[in-house]
Amino acid sequence: MKVTTLKDIANELGISVATVSKALKDYPDVNKDTKEKVLQIARKLNYSPNQLAVNLRTKQTKTIGVIIPTTVHHFFSKVIDGIIEEAEKKGYLVIILQSSEKLFLEKLQVNLLLDKRVDGILMSLSNKTNEFVHLKKVLSRNIPLVLFDKIEPSISCSKVRIDDKKAAYEAVSYLISKGYKKISHFRGDLNPKISNDRFEGYREALEDHGITYDPSLVYLCNNNTDFEDGYTNAKKLIRENPEVDSIFAITDLVAIGAIKYFNENNIKIPDDVAVFGFSNWFMSSVVSPALTTVHQPAHQMGVVATEILLNEIELNKENTPCIHKEVILPTKLILRESC
Amino acid sequence: MKVTTLKDIANELGISVATVSKALKDYPDVNKDTKEKVLQIARKLNYSPNQLAVNLRTKQTKTIGVIIPTTVHHFFSKVIDGIIEEAEKKGYLVIILQSSEKLFLEKLQVNLLLDKRVDGILMSLSNKTNEFVHLKKVLSRNIPLVLFDKIEPSISCSKVRIDDKKAAYEAVSYLISKGYKKISHFRGDLNPKISNDRFEGYREALEDHGITYDPSLVYLCNNNTDFEDGYTNAKKLIRENPEVDSIFAITDLVAIGAIKYFNENNIKIPDDVAVFGFSNWFMSSVVSPALTTVHQPAHQMGVVATEILLNEIELNKENTPCIHKEVILPTKLILRESC
Repeated sequence: MKVTTLKDIANELGISVATVSKALKDYPDVNKDTKEKVLQIARKLNYSPNQLAVNLRTKQTKTIGVIIPTTVHHFFSKVIDGIIEEAEKKGYLVIILQSSEKLFLEKLQVNLLLDKRVDGILMSLSNKTNEFVHLKKVLSRNIPLVLFDKIEPSISCSKVRIDDKKAAYEAVSYLISKGYKKISHFRGDLNPKISNDRFEGYREALEDHGITYDPSLVYLCNNNTDFEDGYTNAKKLIRENPEVDSIFAITDLVAIGAIKYFNENNIKIPDDVAVFGFSNWFMSSVVSPALTTVHQPAHQMGVVATEILLNEIELNKENTPCIHKEVILPTKLILRESC
Repeated sequence: MKVTTLKDIANELGISVATVSKALKDYPDVNKDTKEKVLQIARKLNYSPNQLAVNLRTKQTKTIGVIIPTTVHHFFSKVIDGIIEEAEKKGYLVIILQSSEKLFLEKLQVNLLLDKRVDGILMSLSNKTNEFVHLKKVLSRNIPLVLFDKIEPSISCSKVRIDDKKAAYEAVSYLISKGYKKISHFRGDLNPKISNDRFEGYREALEDHGITYDPSLVYLCNNNTDFEDGYTNAKKLIRENPEVDSIFAITDLVAIGAIKYFNENNIKIPDDVAVFGFSNWFMSSVVSPALTTVHQPAHQMGVVATEILLNEIELNKENTPCIHKEVILPTKLILRESC
């Protein structure tokens, strides 16, 4: 990583390092014009005051930062286990930040990680992330960045994900092959790519099998795609569309919320309504009836994303340019009792 | 926070700040003896090189660090939500580190947080933490520390916890009041105070109600107190103690593992074996049969621990001495179908 030093700023302006240092500390014996010029160049060169201290020690901090939307989803807990396992092997410590699905927190957290001089950053974006200046800032500082699960295609960095559209297509096609026709979708938030991809997979599977897409069968889960979303949407669904025969849910948590509502109200699964989940959370095998779902390799996603990041950190140290990877991990259908 | 400056070291030795600075950077024009003395004093005063940079900016970083054993337990995810909610209100960012129940990682993580100059630290100790030099180091640096859930009584800092012994005592007393006599305990790791307290509560409840304590009914969960522990111990229990009539499990995850085994093997809950959990994870209301358990106020624990920590950070900034608090949050029994 090429870090800007006081000397770089001094050279750029043809003044002494001492003057630059004083200007940055706002000493009264440096004139205003010089201060302004120093600040201008410092900004241009991405100079940050504690780089000095970092340079005194070592260019690497041997820490990586991870920003995830939440730890309540078991999926992210398993990803974190994979990240820590891989990082530990290579002697790296892992700083975790939870954006709680908030863009403003995610931005602050990126700044914090840059300020704390992590060697690289792993991120899964919040549901509300619809601008990307903070990600570009990471890249402009020449800090390796790997996006996983909830990614943004336009950002030029490595990415690890599953094929959400294909997985959803396979799940819904399975339901159709079993004779289900009135298939509801409990979809995720409108912004993130993964929930749009899963929705597209649902719609395409219907259309490819000659079933007309009916928007009134699609229910939005915007309460953190949580258990509660599944419960309240199941209630609404039965009231509004009593003829529904199955649900494809955006996550296992949502599916399990729906199962709870059906169990409480004597609606038989799968005879009255079949339920298909997504992610193969370990609880999906424990609920009654056991949940049919899409297996998503969470732990492996953490390991692979970390491998790529640490490799890019190494290349970066040697000033070797790296070619960004996009790894798509395989998913599979796990067939249980709920369909 | 009183941080050691180059000047403190210079004063201690009666030499110039410039010499101290050069000595720490190992400049050739400072002699070896002086370098050694400077390093000695720097260590004695807990000087760390990037304090300089921190001092240049501000004495506060507006970040707090949290070290937890795992995020896989829903309990800790809820605690984290409480911590972030409270920290966000006061404008603090939260750095999370996961020790994965490893003492060596926990120690490295404490060093990392000190190095990253967090304003305060929240910790729930790993199951393997049986020495506390790293905690004393935090206190010696005058960084506020609050322990929660898995605490160490001998450390002089604020603590937020539940009364694990009392909660376990109440749970087992309830089982006895319902006529259960052969009560097994799936206990936690041998080291942490919470698992010993829950075990003691179990034993005392038996003895106070005239039931002889039988160590062969106690099963150890040492695989991260996980679902798998419950499953494999339930299998062993039925083989070794077929006359057992109930289980008091250290966590809901362990209880749900046992329920899965019983459901798979046509062992009726609660008619053949009753199951009592601990923590009131939201899934405990969804499994079949719904799990009777102890409600543990996870979110509130996060909020309260953070309130105390931020208050101590404020006092610390003003150099006002603070009196450590020990807050014990109330628990309650949640009676469902499994008992």
